[in-house]
Amino acid sequence: MFFRSLPRAASRISPARGLRLDGATINPNVKAAQYAVRGNVLERSMELERRMTAGEKLPFDKFVPCNIGNPHACLQSPLSFHREVLALCMSPSLAKHPNTFKSDVVERANRYTATLNGGVGAYSNSQGIQSVREEVAAYITERDGHPAYADRIFLTNGASEGVRTLLTCLLRQGRADGLLTPIPQYPLYSASLTLLGGTLVPYYLNEGSNWGVEMQNLRESLEFARSNGIEVRGIAVINPGNPTGNILSEDQVREIIQTAVEEKLVILADEVYQANIWKKGASFSSFKKVACDMGLTGKDGDDRLQLVSFHSTSKGFLGECGLRGGYMEVHGIGPEVRAELYKLASLSLCSNTVGQLATGLMINPPREGEPSYETYRKERDDILSSLERRSRMVHKALNELEGVTCNEAEGALYAFPRIRLSKRAKDVAEGKGLPGDEYYCLKMLDETGIILVPGSGFGQEDGTLHFRTTFLPAEDIMHDTIKRLAKAHAAFMDAHRD
Amino acid sequence: MFFRSLPRAASRISPARGLRLDGATINPNVKAAQYAVRGNVLERSMELERRMTAGEKLPFDKFVPCNIGNPHACLQSPLSFHREVLALCMSPSLAKHPNTFKSDVVERANRYTATLNGGVGAYSNSQGIQSVREEVAAYITERDGHPAYADRIFLTNGASEGVRTLLTCLLRQGRADGLLTPIPQYPLYSASLTLLGGTLVPYYLNEGSNWGVEMQNLRESLEFARSNGIEVRGIAVINPGNPTGNILSEDQVREIIQTAVEEKLVILADEVYQANIWKKGASFSSFKKVACDMGLTGKDGDDRLQLVSFHSTSKGFLGECGLRGGYMEVHGIGPEVRAELYKLASLSLCSNTVGQLATGLMINPPREGEPSYETYRKERDDILSSLERRSRMVHKALNELEGVTCNEAEGALYAFPRIRLSKRAKDVAEGKGLPGDEYYCLKMLDETGIILVPGSGFGQEDGTLHFRTTFLPAEDIMHDTIKRLAKAHAAFMDAHRD
Repeated sequence: MFFRSLPRAASRISPARGLRLDGATINPNVKAAQYAVRGNVLERSMELERRMTAGEKLPFDKFVPCNIGNPHACLQSPLSFHREVLALCMSPSLAKHPNTFKSDVVERANRYTATLNGGVGAYSNSQGIQSVREEVAAYITERDGHPAYADRIFLTNGASEGVRTLLTCLLRQGRADGLLTPIPQYPLYSASLTLLGGTLVPYYLNEGSNWGVEMQNLRESLEFARSNGIEVRGIAVINPGNPTGNILSEDQVREIIQTAVEEKLVILADEVYQANIWKKGASFSSFKKVACDMGLTGKDGDDRLQLVSFHSTSKGFLGECGLRGGYMEVHGIGPEVRAELYKLASLSLCSNTVGQLATGLMINPPREGEPSYETYRKERDDILSSLERRSRMVHKALNELEGVTCNEAEGALYAFPRIRLSKRAKDVAEGKGLPGDEYYCLKMLDETGIILVPGSGFGQEDGTLHFRTTFLPAEDIMHDTIKRLAKAHAAFMDAHRD
Repeated sequence: MFFRSLPRAASRISPARGLRLDGATINPNVKAAQYAVRGNVLERSMELERRMTAGEKLPFDKFVPCNIGNPHACLQSPLSFHREVLALCMSPSLAKHPNTFKSDVVERANRYTATLNGGVGAYSNSQGIQSVREEVAAYITERDGHPAYADRIFLTNGASEGVRTLLTCLLRQGRADGLLTPIPQYPLYSASLTLLGGTLVPYYLNEGSNWGVEMQNLRESLEFARSNGIEVRGIAVINPGNPTGNILSEDQVREIIQTAVEEKLVILADEVYQANIWKKGASFSSFKKVACDMGLTGKDGDDRLQLVSFHSTSKGFLGECGLRGGYMEVHGIGPEVRAELYKLASLSLCSNTVGQLATGLMINPPREGEPSYETYRKERDDILSSLERRSRMVHKALNELEGVTCNEAEGALYAFPRIRLSKRAKDVAEGKGLPGDEYYCLKMLDETGIILVPGSGFGQEDGTLHFRTTFLPAEDIMHDTIKRLAKAHAAFMDAHRD
């Protein structure tokens, strides 16, 4: 709203005093938003780190950050081809040094630089570099066997920015607009809903069926919310799951799409772990592919299904979190809304160009026969096979702990075990005003330096307790980490017998 | 809000149907937001470009993008030292090639890499890389002669993200919260206010005194807004000015601070053009410096003045727009609110690490005596002296146009001339449903390929018309551009005589 002042007319009404910006006067939605991945346990670890640096002797000599999917912080190496192309785009004059870069590195960098009007230092098209959006469209077309289009691709600073932008369009201020959200969920969704004044309408994943989606339960939540006046506008789906690590079957994807069509729900498909598939024989089915298989073309005029899919450079086998690269593909979203998405993007001018190029490199790596292919293949396979071994190692180890059960990590980078605490442990936690799982995670941190995230940060069925752990630490560290966790866990259980 | 479903209880109330996401059902704040820098005139230029590419003959053979401060797209070169450090951080193994990098490039890259736990590919601290925040604090301390602190610095994806984050904290949903905003203004402010449901309370800059701030007028707007129930919570100041190109005197800065203290207004000081000073003898006085000179320390416990200052890698003489680097410094903002700012930052995990490092390089360039200093100094001085020449060239040329007057561009990268159109021209515009200045800019585009932004996109006193132009095109192009604009302008005036 543009408030018309009277530039020249002196108003003599004495002003109300302003408000200091403090904890009491800040936007209450900001205060209410919660993001456990960087919450109390991490805060505690930072405090312990300060004390350790100050010379205090702790029961461990280094921290193991299992709280966040941050592969390079866990010693995963970047991919050589990708980084060399980015370095050359950053400083094109490096090409003058002989034998510094393979020919396909130079070719790719030249191709990108040619399409960047002013190099990486210039604002790109707000929607993203055209040539990179074309690479993304080609990747999706090849992946799904259905056409994708560059004008439906928006390049973003990681997937998080795309999710927030879409929710900003979907949720109207002062309205009871809601989003069906899986529980447990990645807290970006709950926090963004709180910030935007939206309502989280939970649908509970079934731990008993390896975190599967129960359509009956989902429909009941939807109906119950609507019968209470909530305008449910969309559904978030995370596949492969975070924190749950499950992979949706093609049948489950189809059922969700069918429901979204019938109930006019926009699907937000968070598919950032699509390259992290560990279950033997399992494969990733994108919502886009299944929708097109069902004849839901999403072409202008066909908005039976409205689907927005998200991907990121941060996960997979790149693990390029710091570069903040990602994209969203819109499907069944008309030109009018695409224009609004473009306008929102233009308000930030553009996403960072290095992240945009990293996105292009992620989905268009060296091909067989190209000079960099063998190195690329080996680096990729080493990372993926090691992650797969670690996922099994963690799954097995967690299930050997007293009172702990853990579903197989079929995909993604996390295990989300259930822990059963004694009444005594729960009472101690309650006495400290902490959820049981947070008390447990803080204890494990104090004893081992391992940073976990309590299940309460993701949401869980009442009466159950969980924690999320990545399996990103390097394998040798992982062996030791598991041993120390097992020892601390046993001690915790003994110390809290009823 | 977390909506409690009844996971197992089947509710039998038939659901309301959902809503398609379209132009009618999208968040109306999104639809209402306007961002002219990439508005109709740019859209038109894209259409013309498509037609030109398709072989159509236009009155010009290339476009001159004067609509946006995007230096590298106007052939400004990046700084060698900065880019080489970033390239080396991107691909550290390049250091093994002899004679590729100067020693201080290697030293800086090693220092950064050592402080990055996992390199540029890892998420950094959500507030920003500690060592870079320390560099920023040292820069501010040196610039102002008053201490700055790393824990008060937040690194952001450009300055725009910082402004939006701060406004998100300041503006409460469903409340009539307002922000005093200069008119004319950079439309990030008006658009963000619209998006967040805030109210723009305008204070008009005085074109007659080279776009100076009139305190009397500012206080009247404030009182008038408050007497109409608007809770005015802050004031935005852009210094040097965008689009106006003025520099605030230290007295003006002091007066604004005094008013902000008395009226409890948070100052948002947009200082992204602090290195773009063209007026002989003029100098930039940061709000932080003047505040500290006035004894407003901003230390915890002293929140008499609440000030948030913004800077960016996009302007100055770096012009690194695409890297999306920037910072905000908070002053007089207590730990509780800083914790909320940290939480908001953590929701996006971190700003892009390359932009963070570019920010460190911007404010901590090579020093005299270091191997890269001479090259750095020459590159910097060439860019700045050329920009200064171009600012005078444009100012002189614009004032020679019939019906056009233009204040001196004392700083920043823009001229904002006033144009006086004949009644006939205004009638033609009105007949096309266009503001007079937009009609003029579209005509200039069609005739010359020069992309300008109508003053209506920034706000202007009723009855006045302006446009904004950058003076970024390279000098030879600029000469030709001015000639062609003068010719097209004269033709426009002749064609629209009353």
